[in-house]
Amino acid sequence: MEKHIVILPGDGIGPEVTNAAKGVLETVAAKFGHNFTFETHEIGGSAIDNQGTPLPEDTVAACRKADGILLGAVGGPKWDDLPGHMRPEKGLLGIRKQLGLFANLRPVKGFDSLLHASPLKPEVVGGSDLLIVRELTGGLYFGEPSERRNNGQDVVDTLAYSRSEIERIVDQSFKSAKVRRNKLTSVDKANVLESSRMWREVVEEKKQEHPDVEVEHMLVDAAAMKLVTNPAYFDVIVTENMFGDILSDEASVLTGSLGMLPSASIRQDGLGLYEPVHGSAPDIAGQDKANPLATILSAAMMLRHSFNMSVEADEIESAVQSVLNDKYHTADLKVKDGTQVSGSELAKKVSEQM
Amino acid sequence: MEKHIVILPGDGIGPEVTNAAKGVLETVAAKFGHNFTFETHEIGGSAIDNQGTPLPEDTVAACRKADGILLGAVGGPKWDDLPGHMRPEKGLLGIRKQLGLFANLRPVKGFDSLLHASPLKPEVVGGSDLLIVRELTGGLYFGEPSERRNNGQDVVDTLAYSRSEIERIVDQSFKSAKVRRNKLTSVDKANVLESSRMWREVVEEKKQEHPDVEVEHMLVDAAAMKLVTNPAYFDVIVTENMFGDILSDEASVLTGSLGMLPSASIRQDGLGLYEPVHGSAPDIAGQDKANPLATILSAAMMLRHSFNMSVEADEIESAVQSVLNDKYHTADLKVKDGTQVSGSELAKKVSEQM
Ligand SMILES: CC(C)[C@H](C(=O)O)[C@@H](O)C(=O)O
Ligand SMILES: CC(C)[C@H](C(=O)O)[C@@H](O)C(=O)O
Repeated sequence: MEKHIVILPGDGIGPEVTNAAKGVLETVAAKFGHNFTFETHEIGGSAIDNQGTPLPEDTVAACRKADGILLGAVGGPKWDDLPGHMRPEKGLLGIRKQLGLFANLRPVKGFDSLLHASPLKPEVVGGSDLLIVRELTGGLYFGEPSERRNNGQDVVDTLAYSRSEIERIVDQSFKSAKVRRNKLTSVDKANVLESSRMWREVVEEKKQEHPDVEVEHMLVDAAAMKLVTNPAYFDVIVTENMFGDILSDEASVLTGSLGMLPSASIRQDGLGLYEPVHGSAPDIAGQDKANPLATILSAAMMLRHSFNMSVEADEIESAVQSVLNDKYHTADLKVKDGTQVSGSELAKKVSEQM
Repeated sequence: MEKHIVILPGDGIGPEVTNAAKGVLETVAAKFGHNFTFETHEIGGSAIDNQGTPLPEDTVAACRKADGILLGAVGGPKWDDLPGHMRPEKGLLGIRKQLGLFANLRPVKGFDSLLHASPLKPEVVGGSDLLIVRELTGGLYFGEPSERRNNGQDVVDTLAYSRSEIERIVDQSFKSAKVRRNKLTSVDKANVLESSRMWREVVEEKKQEHPDVEVEHMLVDAAAMKLVTNPAYFDVIVTENMFGDILSDEASVLTGSLGMLPSASIRQDGLGLYEPVHGSAPDIAGQDKANPLATILSAAMMLRHSFNMSVEADEIESAVQSVLNDKYHTADLKVKDGTQVSGSELAKKVSEQM
């Protein structure tokens, strides 16, 4: 198959980890007889430096025409003091919104060889394998008004949703639950928010269409507790944008594998932006130290979700697993009796395994 | 001193734990020559049952005249299907708002003898001793509009703050930091919310008045991670209402002592409502099984914050500590080689220690 991939390296370690993942994608293409073409564009801090904006128009235009988008990371102390609209993260928020990438999929799974790095006791974290489906283009992030009032004495932000925005993310979460363990936890604050009460209604309606999926509602404060006390309880969690931001980051540290976690931001027609959960780590940028596995696993998610290539995705995921089983790792991971290698070497090991 | 205390037992185990704490307060009064008078009023589900509203007017009126308010817990499955305005939690939200109790203090500290019950590894949780100062009467909880629009197709909630609401909670957090370890972490989402940007400005302004306090800003998603990976990092956290709801519940499970955690909701003149962090536990209500220590420690917070009786408060806290050291406990706590007793017996042990 022919697929066109836009790479947005971004800032810090972004260029090196996306480059590593590109190598793995080329290995997949060669092995399975696909033709992947690549095009690179700027976003975030580097786009601010070179083009004066965190999200240049040609970046958006290229992404619109892509079959899949692979992003490294954005941001860094260099741009921390710029005014709001000129911050690197605006590039990320902008591309999500402009492309309508409304569903953020954040899988959290422990790798056995890394569980020892979890802050949780092994008996608490063991067996955890959950997916957070976060709404990504609505809620407090984009609701209007968001402004000062009354001569700067008052301020408001707006948590806004339309019923159809809630419906499509809830649909996506049922879809995800059905290819997993058929359990869906919808997280809201229905005892306080009107938007949560609408959210709950939509989930109640939609569950009629999916009698095979076990559905429950949980308040966001209770979910924040249960993620820590019993993460293995969850299969799929669906929630609105801000709750999802908080809970998915909380969940990301549970298994001790933060450097390993991929994410996808997708829309209904299959287009998606794939990126590692970790940040741009400016302190180690350019030294070939960065762990490329989260980006490589993000590329695997791209194959599965945007290209319908699940065999190829499985192949990457098992290759990553084998490399970990062989105890190769970058400096960020502490692996007992392991062999520490550079980021590019680790990526090469993954390619070799295929 | 003469102090008038309003007790709001509420639902489930609320009556038995407030009754236990009342006994301890009477012991304090006898020992220190104070005169505490008590008056009991309804709130939550029991108020719905008996008076048709979760927050009867005479309850509010009595609280307005009190020197301190001690609450048990509200809610239970019995009232879960009632419409929004008739839910037990409306009583709690209403009393906070009507009395202007804008600062919620949520201390989290591990008791050595209970740390084994923490989901975190001992080396991660050890030494944790933090205080979350949550804004309690603003933000998404009370902002208007909060409504359906466009024939029910759209919904909005509003995150609203005035500068003075932010100032007073930030002032309170500096005050708390100064009687602790002089470190303040202000948590916001300034890369997305205008209200967070105002929040950050206020903290930056106020910190000029407190050069002795070390101040930092942290994004809410990063804070949700750091609470799990390194809770001992924090001293005082200050944040807005919804973030505070989520983070304080997340924090409450870290030390394995959820059944032990008190809370205070206070205002500038010292009036406060004190309640345990745990819920109404309807499944064990009326069996004298409930652990009264969180409510007893809430009463100690009342002595300290509302009555300026820090010696008396210390006395209760050390008595609780001694009882735990002697390994007396209720059924909820697993204490190695401990003696399991009923809730009322445990409270009596605390009184005896004084
Ligand atoms: C950078 C920031 C605006 C962003 C968000 O809050 O969505 C990030 O935290 C994320 O989760 O991708
Ligand atoms: C019952 C509920 C409305 C309340 C809140 O969210 O404030 C509770 O969770 C709390 O934290 O006291």
